[in-house]
Amino acid sequence: MRTIALFPLLALAAAAPPKKLPTPSDVVAAAPASDWRTIRAEDLLVMDLAKGGRIVVQLAPEFAPVHVANIRALARGNYWDGATIYRLQDNYVAQWGLNESDRPWPAGVTAKPPAEYTRALKGLKVKPLGYPDPYAPGAGFVGGWPVAYSAKAGWANLAHCYASVGVGRDLAPDTGTGGELYAVIGQSPRQLDRNIALVGRVIEGIDRLSSLPRGPAPMGFYTDKGLPTAITKIRMASDMPAADRPSFEYLDTNSPSFARYLRVKANRHDDFYRTPAGGVDLCNVNVPVRKKA
Amino acid sequence: MRTIALFPLLALAAAAPPKKLPTPSDVVAAAPASDWRTIRAEDLLVMDLAKGGRIVVQLAPEFAPVHVANIRALARGNYWDGATIYRLQDNYVAQWGLNESDRPWPAGVTAKPPAEYTRALKGLKVKPLGYPDPYAPGAGFVGGWPVAYSAKAGWANLAHCYASVGVGRDLAPDTGTGGELYAVIGQSPRQLDRNIALVGRVIEGIDRLSSLPRGPAPMGFYTDKGLPTAITKIRMASDMPAADRPSFEYLDTNSPSFARYLRVKANRHDDFYRTPAGGVDLCNVNVPVRKKA
Repeated sequence: MRTIALFPLLALAAAAPPKKLPTPSDVVAAAPASDWRTIRAEDLLVMDLAKGGRIVVQLAPEFAPVHVANIRALARGNYWDGATIYRLQDNYVAQWGLNESDRPWPAGVTAKPPAEYTRALKGLKVKPLGYPDPYAPGAGFVGGWPVAYSAKAGWANLAHCYASVGVGRDLAPDTGTGGELYAVIGQSPRQLDRNIALVGRVIEGIDRLSSLPRGPAPMGFYTDKGLPTAITKIRMASDMPAADRPSFEYLDTNSPSFARYLRVKANRHDDFYRTPAGGVDLCNVNVPVRKKA
Repeated sequence: MRTIALFPLLALAAAAPPKKLPTPSDVVAAAPASDWRTIRAEDLLVMDLAKGGRIVVQLAPEFAPVHVANIRALARGNYWDGATIYRLQDNYVAQWGLNESDRPWPAGVTAKPPAEYTRALKGLKVKPLGYPDPYAPGAGFVGGWPVAYSAKAGWANLAHCYASVGVGRDLAPDTGTGGELYAVIGQSPRQLDRNIALVGRVIEGIDRLSSLPRGPAPMGFYTDKGLPTAITKIRMASDMPAADRPSFEYLDTNSPSFARYLRVKANRHDDFYRTPAGGVDLCNVNVPVRKKA
């Protein structure tokens, strides 16, 4: 866990060491341009914080179309003017929005969306994880997203992993509208899968959320008026001037590079590792996403 | 994800709802005193931060006896005077100690401990998780700890979960001495299992670590001298005056209450949940630990 190797001679002296593998970063760096997919500007929600820093969320309209349409309408209708990050629960979520406001919904918002907790598996091109998942019969990747699924029952759901973004809601059968969003900042709370609408993931600035002070009240709500973090603007990248838009790409999860990345992730055997696990958790794979030049 | 139910009438109106289960917290609150086990003062490492706040680590001598003996000797020998939290990598670890110091080891420290990455399964009373684990043939709980194991090969290892504490080391075959420790502050990095010595877990103050600023250098090292967090004292609870010692207990993982807790964790069906998962990840179970009055 340090940066400097103290015992290179000892390592060299070991007889017939097993073959070392590249690191996951090596595999990503070697992936050709043809294995990367650009994320559309209409799928990027851009949040700027008053104290500096930006959070960019990639939306997943293929999994929660009504909720994602709501989020676009909320951004365009300036619904979030005055929004804050008002809840931080350790090892769980950071949540933002207006918190119990009765501000009316802008035009184009569906006030009671359907429960987009799963979608049909049919039509999805799944790259299977290849290892067991405790939360679903199947786990893998679709279009850059970690998903769980049942081939038998025919459903698929986005999985709650670190940085996943979902729609805050009250007790079932409420599904939330999209006005209150949360991001996962701890161990993947997969028990929420199929119980809440996931709409995307933070692809820039998750550390801005995860390092905020935890709220002292139950569920991590802030009690002190000074604690919530002010958000100055929430916009769709597609509504920003072209020159200012952030742009990202993800590694195609059906590409040969991703297959190699997944194999190395499940069998870490670069210099730091002695014993490859021979498996990996869905939420530990971390689909590579990077800024476009 | 809010606190207030907006649609109680709708919920009441639903016909023949499936039977709701208690929450995990309900099960813990109902556990009798006989299901709790006190943690020994000689297994508690107490770290006080200069800017206020305390971090308490429960040590696991049954899994890494030589490294734990080292940690006790380091605390008693005041090795950590001037120590800081010097590395914070988002969704990974917070690390503390002296960082590349050449301060001599105090008496009683084994400079090159054996690789205590696994121990014999034999003699351990395992409560099986009951769900598949992608990192090992078996997963479960031993004496309050999350463990992975192979019944066939006969080994068991502490699992890297949120708040787990391990020993920083250089490249293999170095195993680290115990002078540099890290705590997991993100998604369980189970790929480190069987590749590093885990020595315990943070049972108080993990949020003090997880909310610190992330370091800008590779691996989360701080570049600015002002960023590391100063630690004023690192002591064993057993070396503190009896009146000042913190005291904790954990829910016996072989108790009936824990069996109930595990079942509810894998089948969340309290008011917020609609669809129980029917499974749970080893690191999402979170063995209950609480302060003793």
